[in-house]
Amino acid sequence: MDSTLELFGLIAGAITSMGFIPQLLKGYKTKKLEDISYYMPAVLGVGMTMWLIYGYLIEALAVIIANAFGITCCFLLIIMKKMYS
Amino acid sequence: MDSTLELFGLIAGAITSMGFIPQLLKGYKTKKLEDISYYMPAVLGVGMTMWLIYGYLIEALAVIIANAFGITCCFLLIIMKKMYS
Repeated sequence: MDSTLELFGLIAGAITSMGFIPQLLKGYKTKKLEDISYYMPAVLGVGMTMWLIYGYLIEALAVIIANAFGITCCFLLIIMKKMYS
Repeated sequence: MDSTLELFGLIAGAITSMGFIPQLLKGYKTKKLEDISYYMPAVLGVGMTMWLIYGYLIEALAVIIANAFGITCCFLLIIMKKMYS
């Protein structure tokens, strides 16, 4: 049961971290991210950084990886928005 | 140490869940969410639903509340985008 639970949490983390991919693809295709608020990826990036530290403290590699990926996506979104505006 | 860790995780969850608020406010002000991909709030909503179930299974109220709030924000963003387009 415990490992099923853990797997469930890991999948949840992976899906949440991948949420930015369709936004990045859409932005890349349209070259427009005007309607995106800078604060969204910024706030989410801060939250994910805390999750990453949390993952480090509890030594959960999957939490670290999922959030490192999420933070990278947030950074990319901010950079793309800057480039396209 | 354990309760400090837990508190850290809870704050991380709260910040991540609040990430959508600035986007909702910007959308509400400008009435434009054209550049937002539907898939972003949709995928994040699915991930957060899994986190919510995970929180229910491990009986962590804060995880449940934070993700219920996040899911609500994702829903609102999708509805607002539909309304404004």
